[in-house]
Amino acid sequence: MLPEAPADHATAFDPVFVEDFDRLLRVRRDVRHFADQAVPAALIARILAAAERAPSVGLSQPWRFVRVDEPRRRAIVRESFRAANADALAGYDGDDAARYASLKLAGLDEAPIHLAVFTDTETESGRGLGRRTMPETLVYSTVAAIQNLWLMARALGLGVGWVSILEPAAVAAALDVPASWSLTAYLCIGYPSATDDTPELERRGWEIRRTTPIEQR
Amino acid sequence: MLPEAPADHATAFDPVFVEDFDRLLRVRRDVRHFADQAVPAALIARILAAAERAPSVGLSQPWRFVRVDEPRRRAIVRESFRAANADALAGYDGDDAARYASLKLAGLDEAPIHLAVFTDTETESGRGLGRRTMPETLVYSTVAAIQNLWLMARALGLGVGWVSILEPAAVAAALDVPASWSLTAYLCIGYPSATDDTPELERRGWEIRRTTPIEQR
Repeated sequence: MLPEAPADHATAFDPVFVEDFDRLLRVRRDVRHFADQAVPAALIARILAAAERAPSVGLSQPWRFVRVDEPRRRAIVRESFRAANADALAGYDGDDAARYASLKLAGLDEAPIHLAVFTDTETESGRGLGRRTMPETLVYSTVAAIQNLWLMARALGLGVGWVSILEPAAVAAALDVPASWSLTAYLCIGYPSATDDTPELERRGWEIRRTTPIEQR
Repeated sequence: MLPEAPADHATAFDPVFVEDFDRLLRVRRDVRHFADQAVPAALIARILAAAERAPSVGLSQPWRFVRVDEPRRRAIVRESFRAANADALAGYDGDDAARYASLKLAGLDEAPIHLAVFTDTETESGRGLGRRTMPETLVYSTVAAIQNLWLMARALGLGVGWVSILEPAAVAAALDVPASWSLTAYLCIGYPSATDDTPELERRGWEIRRTTPIEQR
């Protein structure tokens, strides 16, 4: 352990870095439009290394990454998306239905990298520390890893799109993973074919960005 | 929308920034030791702004922040931690029990800022988009916001500790929040009284850091 932190907050990062980091948070997008361009293996390694620096409850590190390359497996994922998306569309009426139908909600056809992210729900790492009353913190650890990965990807010029319109059990079955692995996210990764500072759902009038007031008690 | 992204990845951040960001990911810690020093309001505003730039399913932005200042409410949270921690200790035997008892697992007494983070499980924002087959993505959005907040805090020299050894329903009741708000995290925030590059659970022999091999399918 290092000595006491000095009162002048010497552990803070440079203000220029903080500004750039703030910009990174602001320009990160959920990407559904990918360029036809391969992603170097070194960049994939970097974003996975970023994921592994995430906090995890009890240092349980429950994240498991599966790169999906085989066309027959990708086809099952695409079909799961197609069916779930059709069901979702059927749940909207009128203008909402028309607007929903106009949205591009996944880049499964174009993304060069498909990465399924699982949580090992039976890992013994961490020996249960911190997850007795809130066991959901195990999967939260995986989500934090995904957010690290997403930000590092954007810093490297890559785009990430999180596809949640899927049947998670169907995807897990298609990928032949251990029974204790639960699907947390299915990510499309590649170079974006266009960039924008505004979320696509906001641009297309689906939802607006709000500011959440902090409550005090 | 901007024109096609150029093939030379002009959207990537500066390599110096990427190195510093990698360092930020590596030095972020779960902090349980806080200095007796107030946190400027401007810094709290900055970390909350970082949280709000998180991705959220359907742009639902379900995160809700409650700053806990009243001593009687903090006392209930502390008591919930004390009871849950005693129960957890009772679940370990021998060396594990001795080691668990030696760990400092929360900084609830010293941290100047207590921030409870909830997910509004009944928000209509996003109109359900993306969470029909995986409704858990709503709370995952809140977790991504917490990870943004955590990283920005560390960039500003602040420490964050996530306390999950609590009864979430007891904490929610103590804070008088709407019934639809579910507790996602209880965070202690302040200047750390010491810094270290290695997680405390690793230094104290509770768990080791691993590298997760990527699987291919």
